[in-house]
Formats: sequence, structure tokens, C-alpha cells
Amino acid sequence: MTIPKIEWPNGAKCAAAITFDMDADSLIHVARPSDGHDRLYPISMGQYGPKVALPRILETYRKFGLKQSFFVPGWCLEQYPETIEAILNGGHEIGHHGYIHEDPTAHGAAEQRYWFERTLESHLRVTGKKPIGYRAPVYNVNQAVIDLLIEHEFQYDSSLMGDDLPYILDTPDGSLVELPVHWGTDDWPAFAHYDEIGYMMPVRGPSAGLAPFWEEFEAQYETGGFWIGIWHPFLTGRTARWRQVEAWLEGIMERDDVWFAPLHEISAYIRSQTETGSVRVDQLPYYNGPVALR
Amino acid sequence: MTIPKIEWPNGAKCAAAITFDMDADSLIHVARPSDGHDRLYPISMGQYGPKVALPRILETYRKFGLKQSFFVPGWCLEQYPETIEAILNGGHEIGHHGYIHEDPTAHGAAEQRYWFERTLESHLRVTGKKPIGYRAPVYNVNQAVIDLLIEHEFQYDSSLMGDDLPYILDTPDGSLVELPVHWGTDDWPAFAHYDEIGYMMPVRGPSAGLAPFWEEFEAQYETGGFWIGIWHPFLTGRTARWRQVEAWLEGIMERDDVWFAPLHEISAYIRSQTETGSVRVDQLPYYNGPVALR
Amino acid sequence: MTIPKIEWPNGAKCAAAITFDMDADSLIHVARPSDGHDRLYPISMGQYGPKVALPRILETYRKFGLKQSFFVPGWCLEQYPETIEAILNGGHEIGHHGYIHEDPTAHGAAEQRYWFERTLESHLRVTGKKPIGYRAPVYNVNQAVIDLLIEHEFQYDSSLMGDDLPYILDTPDGSLVELPVHWGTDDWPAFAHYDEIGYMMPVRGPSAGLAPFWEEFEAQYETGGFWIGIWHPFLTGRTARWRQVEAWLEGIMERDDVWFAPLHEISAYIRSQTETGSVRVDQLPYYNGPVALR
Amino acid sequence: MTIPKIEWPNGAKCAAAITFDMDADSLIHVARPSDGHDRLYPISMGQYGPKVALPRILETYRKFGLKQSFFVPGWCLEQYPETIEAILNGGHEIGHHGYIHEDPTAHGAAEQRYWFERTLESHLRVTGKKPIGYRAPVYNVNQAVIDLLIEHEFQYDSSLMGDDLPYILDTPDGSLVELPVHWGTDDWPAFAHYDEIGYMMPVRGPSAGLAPFWEEFEAQYETGGFWIGIWHPFLTGRTARWRQVEAWLEGIMERDDVWFAPLHEISAYIRSQTETGSVRVDQLPYYNGPVALR
Repeated sequence: MTIPKIEWPNGAKCAAAITFDMDADSLIHVARPSDGHDRLYPISMGQYGPKVALPRILETYRKFGLKQSFFVPGWCLEQYPETIEAILNGGHEIGHHGYIHEDPTAHGAAEQRYWFERTLESHLRVTGKKPIGYRAPVYNVNQAVIDLLIEHEFQYDSSLMGDDLPYILDTPDGSLVELPVHWGTDDWPAFAHYDEIGYMMPVRGPSAGLAPFWEEFEAQYETGGFWIGIWHPFLTGRTARWRQVEAWLEGIMERDDVWFAPLHEISAYIRSQTETGSVRVDQLPYYNGPVALR
Repeated sequence: MTIPKIEWPNGAKCAAAITFDMDADSLIHVARPSDGHDRLYPISMGQYGPKVALPRILETYRKFGLKQSFFVPGWCLEQYPETIEAILNGGHEIGHHGYIHEDPTAHGAAEQRYWFERTLESHLRVTGKKPIGYRAPVYNVNQAVIDLLIEHEFQYDSSLMGDDLPYILDTPDGSLVELPVHWGTDDWPAFAHYDEIGYMMPVRGPSAGLAPFWEEFEAQYETGGFWIGIWHPFLTGRTARWRQVEAWLEGIMERDDVWFAPLHEISAYIRSQTETGSVRVDQLPYYNGPVALR
Repeated sequence: MTIPKIEWPNGAKCAAAITFDMDADSLIHVARPSDGHDRLYPISMGQYGPKVALPRILETYRKFGLKQSFFVPGWCLEQYPETIEAILNGGHEIGHHGYIHEDPTAHGAAEQRYWFERTLESHLRVTGKKPIGYRAPVYNVNQAVIDLLIEHEFQYDSSLMGDDLPYILDTPDGSLVELPVHWGTDDWPAFAHYDEIGYMMPVRGPSAGLAPFWEEFEAQYETGGFWIGIWHPFLTGRTARWRQVEAWLEGIMERDDVWFAPLHEISAYIRSQTETGSVRVDQLPYYNGPVALR
Repeated sequence: MTIPKIEWPNGAKCAAAITFDMDADSLIHVARPSDGHDRLYPISMGQYGPKVALPRILETYRKFGLKQSFFVPGWCLEQYPETIEAILNGGHEIGHHGYIHEDPTAHGAAEQRYWFERTLESHLRVTGKKPIGYRAPVYNVNQAVIDLLIEHEFQYDSSLMGDDLPYILDTPDGSLVELPVHWGTDDWPAFAHYDEIGYMMPVRGPSAGLAPFWEEFEAQYETGGFWIGIWHPFLTGRTARWRQVEAWLEGIMERDDVWFAPLHEISAYIRSQTETGSVRVDQLPYYNGPVALR
């Protein structure tokens, strides 16, 4: 077994991306369909994202000349058009993240297609273009979603944890670049405290919560890997946390050998490297049916 | 999208408030209506608040000349009159916090009104005046409560997480100042361990548990924002923790450029600033019915 | 409201006690009555207490000349006689801790009496004497247990959290000294990871887990209070943790102004101070029936 | 009661072993038998083990000349033959870890035998030999499994927590060496975040998560004990974490007085010491039936 190694463009030591899943208040509507619209605390907690955190985040990106990726449910595209406009004006990417953060694995094939394509329509209507990247709500991609992504000519998925380095998901009908995520750089375990969705973590202080992400970055930097933050505006976009992110980013920018890019650029680069044999390939589907337990 | 900025009075760099929700043993009676009155451990854990922590907290406030805000369920007003008298003698504010920490969203409109107004009667009877500020038990405010607050001429709510800075909740019938809370400065995730109510956090040591609050303060201080502690006497009022709070407060007092005030004063100031356009406004209700999930 | 203050004997700055609840494997038998006897992992985890941790703990106590208190379920007295003999040979106190760690609040009055008195018989048979101190399993004392304690001439309870300082539980039929506990010095939140009983904490490292206890101690030392560890041999008695406790104890012993004593001595001293008016008194029962929720 | 002491070979101060349970994606198939095969996120999270972490781990072991032990479910042996071949080529031990990580206590005697022996067949077919060591999935060994281990001439078990030092499990039909585990050196509480199996820990950063293991090591080193890591490739084998393990190992290797060995060697050594009386013996079964709770 060999250990794959990717040469990054322009001699960069590693690739890096901050991705924000801007779910806003979609979560409470899905979790409590009957009265979520009237639960003002979780609504306000989520709306902190589009209303307060996003301007702050976009200002930081502007300051450092960064273009990054956002994953936004279709319903949120429609609900927060001013925020979406600001994201697009900054030159950032907006990826597919379901319609209203519905869990794909909770649906049958027809319903999955319905939500998936309804979301595409939202993208077209609000942003004027089809997304080419996808992140599944709660990471819950399954084979039917992979097939939809390929059918709709997506370039990449970013929902799996099968590697540190990007790899290829190859299927009989086509392939995707996988830009893998990891709980170690997801801000949900550090900061989320959300009883209504059954997710209760012992909220960390800003530096204690962010330190793991910086440690993870140094490891990818040293090994020539890929670092990705999977963050949420209402969590890591909070004032005290984001100021620390900004200070960290300033240090990273000074290094000059980190390739910070939106996922669509990293995906395209990975695609260009598949001929070199340095990119690992997973054949999908992993299984054609339930693993027999007797 | 612009980033709002509030000018604080007398050139203060930021506004700050410690708020204590003095729930005492109300929680166990609500969680276990049939035998909560006979569960001596949670009763004693809660009673530590009015009996032991409050004198300590009030003494610290007296020492530093601080007036602050307390949110106390109506039942606790009636149950711990000596403690309430000491709070009032210190010149502190007592806000509305439900009757016995009942969750507003668990009730229909009539029942909400019943509890809300019964609590007002407790305030009148015990403190001699109607409160002008409100914090929902478990932060669970909904539109019906907002309407009750406006009907009863409340000035502010402090249950939502939609911003760092205070903002306005505007409704067709009137408006409230929102003095927003945040899990990052709530002591529940750091210190609460309460199996009977299904809330089990890995209790932190005093300095580890409090450090996040001080980090959050520095961020608001540097950015000219609003810092608020949402604490509970039986948690942060414990000896080892409160001594650290006191030492921290001493340092803050020496700065001379922090506006530490009870919420009613901050609310009044925010109201005075709405003409300047520097205060963000949210239009309520956020939604008129369930968000269609198909 | 005044803040009580206790003068400790011989000019000691504070009182202190390590108490061990030696539950051994009782917990798994209660949690899984049908197959707990055949679940070797939780059995072995619990048996680490009497078989491995106790000799280590007793050796440390011997080295420092300490006499301390142990709370042991009656079933464990019968099951681990060699360990009990070693505890008694060291001059330590053994308190009542239920028969097999059954939750008193799960039982009606007759059943409570049955288990309570059966435990007394175990004590008489194994240790030769009746205990005078009590700690409720899972702290779940109720009024019926308080009444049993008074009926059986117990001197103290150590299950409540109503104060830092010892206080008096006064009832129409007699009184008890309460030597109060606290989650901040209980080792369960720091170290317990026990799926079978539904208690899953993110196990801390030895120093991170113990640091909170030392912080709590310094606060009681500075304020002239009472520090109590509520520990379990299978948790804090583990090698890496106990070595740190031992090092800490060595430092405390050198101070010469800490009164480290078994609970029965502290209880007797508190009783002697009640005349001075410096000891707070709680009148029980707290409530005569359910608190009306409408 | 005496405190046992083992003399380690060649004057080593302590014995040590890193054990990896390579469960790969077996967990999701057991937890969700109907659709686990189509949940790509947990599948990919688990497959990180055989596909990405194992080459990295084996390379480190090769570099330091270490032979260590892996516990691999039979299904994983069959599913990831290339990884298994690499483990065997490195001279490492592969122990029995159930067929597909099924919980032994969830099965009756006949079913237990079926899975146990089917796993033996997998070992024979894939590795060419019968394992001599066992670790129960989720540590859930029971007496029936102990009996199967003895019937099939296993030398050791490594699923119990009854001591720090290895000890003997003696039964009427034969005996096993127990190489005991502990939550304090298991990487599950530090790093696992796995909603589908109901195990949600607040993922620690690499150094914060690993520090407890190093503290535990120092304690065993100082006391002449036995240190064992119970780790999982998809957790501790992640880049940022493993680099810290490697740096730590480098320091340990320089000490020259730590006996780092696979469990089968430690087991054989312990067996050789039983005559000296320095090894503690537990008689099994612990109980012949349910402990009477009345």
C-alpha cells in the first residue's frame, strides 16, 4: 500500500479552504415542522448567520483577497437574498446544500430527486447559475444523491471522511472529486448547543474551541495535505470567535505558501492531476445491498 | 450590508451586564411534578441560589457599586422573600422569568396568558412594581409572549441570539429592545449537571469554565459591543467560581471605560439611539405559519 | 441576610475530607438485573475499586496518618470482606450507602425501610457496628430517608448541595448535620464513562480531571470553608490519577493548617458549634406535598 | 491486602502496547442493518482506517522496529485483504474481535458460538492461522465467550478493566491472561463523534485528546506497570493525531527501558511469571446467576 501525495500548484505546501454551511434557521423548521416557525430563540440563533456573521466574514475575506465556498440550502437562498447577493459580489462560490437542510437518507428516491432539483431551481433563480459542488445536510449523502450529482454534472462532493487528501469517487456513470471533511475541523462539536435538534455539546471558549482547527492545519501544512474548515456562520462567525479566525488568517496569509482557494478551484486542480496517478480512487457503489449479518 | 455600530454613553468602550436567573428549585418541581417536592438533592442544589449565593453576589455588587439585573420566576419571588428584599435593597432590577420556570412553548395562548399575568401579580405583590424586562425560561419566547410583553408595556426582552449588539423587535403593535443572549456566556453548558431535567454537561473547573466568558468580554470590549453573562446563582454563585468572578470584576472596574449597567438602563439607552439609525431592527413575526416543507 | 462563618478547631483555616463511595460492581447489577452478573467488563471496572484501588488508597492514608470516610453499600460489605477489614484496620469510617446502590426515590416507604434496615444489618454483621453517617446512592435522599436516619440515630447526612459549609437539617423528630456535596468535587463528571447506566462523560486526563478539585480546595482554604471530595475508587483510585492525588495531599499536609478528618468528626464538631449560632439551619420537610403547578 | 508487582524482562521499567481495533465500516452495518450499506459518510469515516491510516501506522512501526497488535473483525479481514497483508508483512499480531463487531451480550449461546467460530474461519482463511488473543467488541465479553476462548486455546483476553497490571482469569476449564484496558487510554471518549451509533463526544484537538494517554503512560512508567492504548485507525490514525503519536513514540524509544511488545508476547511473559506469585488471579465465573435484588 502506498501513501498518496499531491503536488499543489505554484509550489504551495498545502491546499486550504474555509467552507461555511449557511443553514440559518432552516434546522428548526425541519426539526419542528409544526411550531418551529414560532420558536424565536432557535430562529434568532440561526439568523445570526445571514444577518450578522456574513457581513463580518465577507469583510475579512475582502481584506485578505480570499474567495471561498459557501453551502446554502435553497430555502435560505430565497429567504436571505441580500446576504446571497453580498456573497456573490465577493466572488465566492455557493454550493448545493439541500433545499431546507432535509436529511437525504430520510427520503425515498422520488422525494430525493424532488428536493434536489427544487434546490437547483432555487440556485438558478437566485444566483443565476447551477452549482457544481455539493455538501449533504448532516453529511448524509447516499448513492442516489451521488447519482443525481453525476446526472446534473456536478464536479465535486464534500461530505465524506475517507481521506485527508482529495480523492475520486468513480461510478459506472461518471465521477466526482471528493473534497473530504472531518469532525476535527467541523465547528459543530466545539460550539453547537441545540437541544431542539438533540445536539448538545459543552460549548468551548473561543480559543479552546478553535485551537484544534489550527493544530489540524499545521499537520496538513507539514505533510502537504488539504485542510478544510466546515463551519457555520452562527457558530464560528460569532464576534469573539471570528476575531481569532481573522488573526489566524493574517498569519497564514503571511506564509505565502498556502493555497487558499474555493472548493471548485481545488476540485478542478485535482481533476487535472488524476492522470498523474497521485490521486486515490474509490469505486462506488461501495455495496450493492445490505451487508448480510447472517 | 453594513455592520452596525453603537456609540455607548460617556465614551464607554462597551456595555456590559451580568444577569442572574434565580430559578432556585423551580426546575425540579416543573420537571417532576409528582415527586419533585420530595427530591431533596435537586431542591438543595437550587436553593443554594437564594440562601447562599445571593448574599455573596449582592455583597460583591455593593463593594463595586454595581446595580445589575436578576430574572426571578414569580413562584421564587413568593418563596424566597428575604432574598428578594435583599436584591431590591441593593437597588437591582428584577425581571419577569415566568411563574415557575414553565416553558412558554409548551402552552397554548390562554395558558400562556394565565402564567404570564399571574407572574405579574407576584411581582406587584412582592416587589411592589411591574417588571419592564423579560427573559423566557429556557429562552423559549414565542410570538404570543412577545405580544403579551408589548400589551403589558415591557421595554425589553433578553431571550434571543440574533446579534451581539442590542436590536429592536418591531411588531405591528409596538416594539421591544432585544438585549441578546448567547450560549458562549451562559453558565449552563460550563457547570450544569442535572440528570432530572436531562441536562448533563461535563462540569468544568472554575477557571476553565469561566475563561470563555472573559474571552468573550475582551472581544466585545475591543469591538465596542455588548457583553452579557447569563448566569445562575447555584452555578456561578458557588464559592470557588464567584471568587474568580469577583477578581475579574475588580480588574474591569479599574478600566473605567466599561459601562456596567442593569438591563433596563441599557434598554433605555438603546431606545434613545434608534433615531440615529445605528440600531438594527427585526420585523416580527418572523413567520406567519409553518414553513412549508413540501 | 448574613454570611455564616464557622471557626474550625485548633485554628485550622478550613476543614477537608476525601470521601470514597466504594460501589464496586453494585451499579451493573442494579442497572441490568437480568444479565448484569454476566457482563464482565462493567463488573471488572467496578471491582477495580475493592481489589486494586483500595490497597493503594489505604497505603496513602497510612503514610500521611489520615483517617477518612468510606461509603459502602451493604452488599459490597458482604462481597468484599477483605477490603472492608483493611479499611477498618486503618481506623477509617464506613457510612451507610444503601444496600446495593438502589435509588431510594424509586421505592415506596415500606421498600425503603426494608433496604435501609437490611443495610444496617450488613453493617452490624460485617463491621460490628451501626453507621452514624449516610450518603444516598445517586444523592437521592428524600424525606422518608431523612426520617429513617433520625429514627436510627444517625448523626449526619452527606447527599445535599444546599451550602458550602456544613448545616443542620432540622425536623420535628430530630436533626442531622448535613455535610454537603457538590458536582464540582465529585469525580463522576470528570472520569465516568458507563454506557450501561446511561452516564457518558468525555473522560478527562488525570491532571485535567483533578485540577478542578484543587481549585475548589484553594477557594475553601481561602474562605475558611469545607472541602469534600466525593470520589470512587474505580475512578480516582486509578494509578495515574491517584499518584496526583497523593502528590497534592503531600503538599496539603505540609501546610499544617488544614483540618483533614473523617466526616463523623466534622459532624460532631459542627454539632458542638450549633449553640454559637454560626451554623445555618434548614427546616425540613421543605414541602408537604407537590408544588401546585396550577 | 498486598499490592502486586511484576518484574519486566531485561530490566524494563514497564510494559507497553498500542493496540488498534480496526473496525473499518463494520459499525454502521451493525447499527443500521437495513441501510447502513448506503450511508456513505459513516462508511467513509470507517474506511479511512484500512485505506489511509493503516499504511501510515505501519510505516511508523517499521521505522521504530515495533511489532504491535491489531484486533480486526472477521468481516474486515475479508473486506480489506490488502491492508491485512500489509499488517502481516510487518510482523504484527492480529487478534479476534468478533465477526462484524457484533455485541456478544446481545446473543444467546448458540449464536455466540456461530459468530465466534465463523470469525476463526475467517482468520484461518485470510491470515492462515488461528488467533490467540481476543478483544470483545464494545468490551462486552461474558462467561460464554470466556469459555469459547478457553475451548479454542486462546492465550489471552484484552477486554476487562479489573487492574492496571495483567492478571489471570482462572476458570474450572482453564485460564487466560487478562491484559486489561481502560477508558483513560481508549481513544473513543477523546475523538469519536458518531451519531448513528449513539456515541457523541465533544471531539478534542489532537494534543488535548492525546495528552491524557501520555500522562497515563508516565504513571505506568514510574510505577513499573503496564500501559496500553486502545485505539482506532479512523480516530488516532488521522494525520494530525498520528504525527503527535509518532513524535511521542520517538521519545519513548530513546528511553531504552520500555518494553514495547505485541500482546501475545506480553501474555506469554505473564504466563511465565505466574509461578512467582506476583500475578493476581481472578476466579471465574464471578457470579453463577443474577445477584438477588430482593
